[in-house]
Amino acid sequence: MSTTETWLTSLITATPQEGFELAITLSRRGVKYTQPDPEILKKLRPTYAEDARALTAASQVVAINFQTVAAANNYWRK
Amino acid sequence: MSTTETWLTSLITATPQEGFELAITLSRRGVKYTQPDPEILKKLRPTYAEDARALTAASQVVAINFQTVAAANNYWRK
Amino acid sequence: MSTTETWLTSLITATPQEGFELAITLSRRGVKYTQPDPEILKKLRPTYAEDARALTAASQVVAINFQTVAAANNYWRK
Amino acid sequence: MSTTETWLTSLITATPQEGFELAITLSRRGVKYTQPDPEILKKLRPTYAEDARALTAASQVVAINFQTVAAANNYWRK
Amino acid sequence: MSTTETWLTSLITATPQEGFELAITLSRRGVKYTQPDPEILKKLRPTYAEDARALTAASQVVAINFQTVAAANNYWRK
Amino acid sequence: MSTTETWLTSLITATPQEGFELAITLSRRGVKYTQPDPEILKKLRPTYAEDARALTAASQVVAINFQTVAAANNYWRK
Repeated sequence: MSTTETWLTSLITATPQEGFELAITLSRRGVKYTQPDPEILKKLRPTYAEDARALTAASQVVAINFQTVAAANNYWRK
Repeated sequence: MSTTETWLTSLITATPQEGFELAITLSRRGVKYTQPDPEILKKLRPTYAEDARALTAASQVVAINFQTVAAANNYWRK
Repeated sequence: MSTTETWLTSLITATPQEGFELAITLSRRGVKYTQPDPEILKKLRPTYAEDARALTAASQVVAINFQTVAAANNYWRK
Repeated sequence: MSTTETWLTSLITATPQEGFELAITLSRRGVKYTQPDPEILKKLRPTYAEDARALTAASQVVAINFQTVAAANNYWRK
Repeated sequence: MSTTETWLTSLITATPQEGFELAITLSRRGVKYTQPDPEILKKLRPTYAEDARALTAASQVVAINFQTVAAANNYWRK
Repeated sequence: MSTTETWLTSLITATPQEGFELAITLSRRGVKYTQPDPEILKKLRPTYAEDARALTAASQVVAINFQTVAAANNYWRK
């Protein structure tokens, strides 16, 4: 489970858009921890990205991670 | 993951309805980050929009994003 | 995404039951934004409403939206 | 969406178990608003209750509604 | 929906691990309320426990219930 | 449900990345409580890890558990 690479040091971002992009990173990392082989992930990608249901499911994971990042940033309220 | 275009500068909206529409934007952006090709997205749309389960799944992503936007706006309490 | 019609001006309701009904409205709106054609929605309805899994999925979207509405109303605590 | 019957007047329950049972009521109501015909629901039940995935999905809706009820009751902390 | 048996008197646990185990209990109870017949549940179990997607779905319900139990316990912060 | 092994004593982690890795541990534990046989889990793994939808579903469970761990750690705000 542990990885030697450091990829996440903070949930704080300057803008909501950067927060949304962090949510996408978190979603992809969740996949990579289960399937670490980049060759297999690359092979899965085409079918995946043309499957409407799979795209919606991916968007759902992003939405859940965005809840976390947005709360961490107090919703970027000014 | 990063994009040169700025599309999200704030989660604050004037009304709950605008907040709901922002939740829809967030849901669609989650899809676009996974499948950025507009031609493929356009091709997927018809099957998608006539599939009852896919529509419910889309509504679920909107609901999750609306939780985030509503919390950011303190639920538009007066 | 924007619509000329105003359908959501507040998340505050007098009772939890009205809040639950608002959650249903939000769930249906999430579908309508993706598939605005009432004819197609009407056509999808019969299959949908007799599919146990689809009904559970619909109930799940309502549950997520009810979380938002209930929080907005401080859970109607007296 | 509105119904003449009053079925939900409060989210407050005496015990967590009653709260869990209220979460089940909310989950079933979410289904009934989409499919109000008791004959069709009765017909769907056998297949449904012997389908492992459908049972897990039902349990998930209960879990989401239980989050709402538990928060409303401040988790029944003494 | 009501049951004569008392199975849930508190969401408070001594440790996070006990909290996680309570989340599993809650997830199983959600299934039992929908399908109370232990014979049918027993029959469903083998197929279920060897289906990767079903196992992930079960883990998701546990995760949702664990959110509730963890919040109830203030995350067991010392 | 109970296990003699102690595997979870705290939700507090030093960094968000360690928190994410804890979320993965929680997600796997959720599976293990349903299917404790390591031989069957090993047998399921190949099909699982090459199924794009299953990988997204796994990532979703991680996202839900990460919400819990992140809240427990006050989002590692400094």
